[in-house]
Amino acid sequence: MTAQSFSRLPGFRDFPPEDLAFRAHIFEAWRTVARRYGFQEYDGPPLEALDLYVEKSGEEIVGQLYAFTDKGDREVALRPEMTPSLARILAERSRALPKPIRWFSIPQLFRYERQQRGRLREHFQWNVDIVGEEGVAADAEVLAVAIDGLRELGLGPEDFRARVSDRRLLSAILSSTGVEPAGMDDAFAAIDKIEREPRERVRARLAGAGVGESDADAVLTLFQDGGAEAAREAFGGREAVDSELARLEEYVAILGAMGLGAFVEVDLAIVRGLAYYTGIVFELFDRLGSLRAICGGGRYDRLLERVGGEALPAVGFGMGDVVLGELLRERGRAPGHARGVDDYLVVIGEAQRSVMLRVAHALRSSGRSVLYSLKDQSVRKQFKAAESEGAARVLVLGPDEAARGVLVARDMGTGLEEEIAITALEAG
Amino acid sequence: MTAQSFSRLPGFRDFPPEDLAFRAHIFEAWRTVARRYGFQEYDGPPLEALDLYVEKSGEEIVGQLYAFTDKGDREVALRPEMTPSLARILAERSRALPKPIRWFSIPQLFRYERQQRGRLREHFQWNVDIVGEEGVAADAEVLAVAIDGLRELGLGPEDFRARVSDRRLLSAILSSTGVEPAGMDDAFAAIDKIEREPRERVRARLAGAGVGESDADAVLTLFQDGGAEAAREAFGGREAVDSELARLEEYVAILGAMGLGAFVEVDLAIVRGLAYYTGIVFELFDRLGSLRAICGGGRYDRLLERVGGEALPAVGFGMGDVVLGELLRERGRAPGHARGVDDYLVVIGEAQRSVMLRVAHALRSSGRSVLYSLKDQSVRKQFKAAESEGAARVLVLGPDEAARGVLVARDMGTGLEEEIAITALEAG
Repeated sequence: MTAQSFSRLPGFRDFPPEDLAFRAHIFEAWRTVARRYGFQEYDGPPLEALDLYVEKSGEEIVGQLYAFTDKGDREVALRPEMTPSLARILAERSRALPKPIRWFSIPQLFRYERQQRGRLREHFQWNVDIVGEEGVAADAEVLAVAIDGLRELGLGPEDFRARVSDRRLLSAILSSTGVEPAGMDDAFAAIDKIEREPRERVRARLAGAGVGESDADAVLTLFQDGGAEAAREAFGGREAVDSELARLEEYVAILGAMGLGAFVEVDLAIVRGLAYYTGIVFELFDRLGSLRAICGGGRYDRLLERVGGEALPAVGFGMGDVVLGELLRERGRAPGHARGVDDYLVVIGEAQRSVMLRVAHALRSSGRSVLYSLKDQSVRKQFKAAESEGAARVLVLGPDEAARGVLVARDMGTGLEEEIAITALEAG
Repeated sequence: MTAQSFSRLPGFRDFPPEDLAFRAHIFEAWRTVARRYGFQEYDGPPLEALDLYVEKSGEEIVGQLYAFTDKGDREVALRPEMTPSLARILAERSRALPKPIRWFSIPQLFRYERQQRGRLREHFQWNVDIVGEEGVAADAEVLAVAIDGLRELGLGPEDFRARVSDRRLLSAILSSTGVEPAGMDDAFAAIDKIEREPRERVRARLAGAGVGESDADAVLTLFQDGGAEAAREAFGGREAVDSELARLEEYVAILGAMGLGAFVEVDLAIVRGLAYYTGIVFELFDRLGSLRAICGGGRYDRLLERVGGEALPAVGFGMGDVVLGELLRERGRAPGHARGVDDYLVVIGEAQRSVMLRVAHALRSSGRSVLYSLKDQSVRKQFKAAESEGAARVLVLGPDEAARGVLVARDMGTGLEEEIAITALEAG
């Protein structure tokens, strides 16, 4: 039997206790906020049929998935996102549920792109969805959850902002400039790249998608730096634009009424890559702008029927733990990880061990966290262990005290000692 | 775009909210008890190199794994158990950690045996390990955690028992009957089947492993129905048997001192299938005996060095959520899953909506769970929704009250109503 050295697979993380504690801190904030908004937690399998993702995102998604053939010759994939599983689960159950359905989940998700060295292949993602309500109040509610999730972790308007847009408004504006339905995806793709490509290249792309020459500059200017007012100035009065604008403004007003106005800005260049969004979309960004998006979401009204379910409108978001974790560390919002235990029991002589075991179990049954040495050690070593474990209190069982039915409790913060009756501790 | 119907993969579970709540109830008990015993939570990747499992369990394990070749031509497997990942993580880190190391985890685990239709291919498992302490007190501590995990869920000595044994004691007894080291695995395998095979077949297997004719009946009788006393009567005084017996009795005495004696019985036929156990082993069973083992564990002192780490003794267990869930349901210990929310806000007229949004957000920020209708609805429908969501309190915002700066709060339990100043709610 030779010793062999093993390493974890590239792109995966271990979570030793200090990292697990940080992850648990984020999950706890997510769960707390979701419950305040009346959401119920669900989960699905980490592995699904490959077809489920192809149906939603097209064949080209396969190259990005952690996909393989299982022993039963099924084409399967480790889930790259949660929404298809949500849609599949609801397809079976939604008819029996009161609407709107408010569900959240914190799945681990997986991607495998061959060319990307050093990039993580898994992360955890908070998924929050309202299904069965088409009104703009549901869109606002979902964004409020995302914002409050970050606020719960100690971040404020100086740390992040939500950039919001509406694909229906973009469609109305682009239509009014001459883009036909067949060219709409190309026009969206051009706008999606507006921050990363030279103006002339975007202009050419827009022209190719059907944007008329007379509107080209107005479109470029609006999507580079424009909000709702700029849209009204440049395109107000055109068919459908005004009503779409009014809805986006109502959305912003609802978030304002909630007291979250400082977090929200209209930025029409937010398109979201995924083809299945149908309405308002949003992304949350670090205000300093150095990190990738913290969160993205929006309305997807036609997905459920595509996976065989009830035709239900839906709106939701996904927020990953990796970018968020970087942001929290950068801003000094990662909690410290101190070892700590309520009580450490010290015996003076092994004769006390059986009383000590009884007391330890009674304290644990009452809810306290308790440690003691698992072997015969000097009192000095036991106290040293108590310190290194971060014990708040040390309980010392000595033969003289035991004869009187008491032990000595030392508060490790103040150093103060007092005698406590053993029967009192055993009673819980 | 045609609607297509998708189903989940065979052997996997969905967790809609009522099932997730049951799972969360179990996880919460596990975490609570682990922390009382001073354990820290960790996690590892759900996917590992196949070699890690082959190293621990031999080539024959591959047929039971959810194994595949990834896009980078690596042989990988969805983790079938957590201990190899624990050993791998500790191989990197144990030298820097104070001993003993007390870690726990709640991973989802996976198996794929081709022939077993209808059987689950995943489950969640509570893993609890003490690493770096060879004394019997560590063995007792770990079993106490397992027992208290079930007690925390409402189960008592009438519901389950722990059957304990020690592979070192078995070895000493079998050695004394003539079994050579080379025959020990065969002898263990024979004992492992003692409850399922006819006495004569087990007798033949034992003879084949080297048990002498004069001891055969005593061995059979002891392992079919014997505890520590029977072992002493039949094999006491033989080399090594007495000291191994003394250790097992000390183990049982420690659990007795903790007040857990009613849960523990020595049953020398408990061998545990896995080859890496080296000392005390145990299994927890339903007292009515209709279910498979709820939990299994024991000492494995040589695993860490085999995966390239520090040579450290270790003891731990795994407890799955599936058999436990069945037991809890059978015993009426599954919690009810009632929908519930602290406040439901009702508006009389849409003019109140913006005040309502402000109040809702203030209540949520103070920690309360709050719902309201996301669309314009009659007061009757809003109250109906409040009831179906299980609201404890309904807050009604009407125009007359709003003009006076108040709203009406109705306790949905008692039906009592009172006026509350809106500013008081907004203050949290």
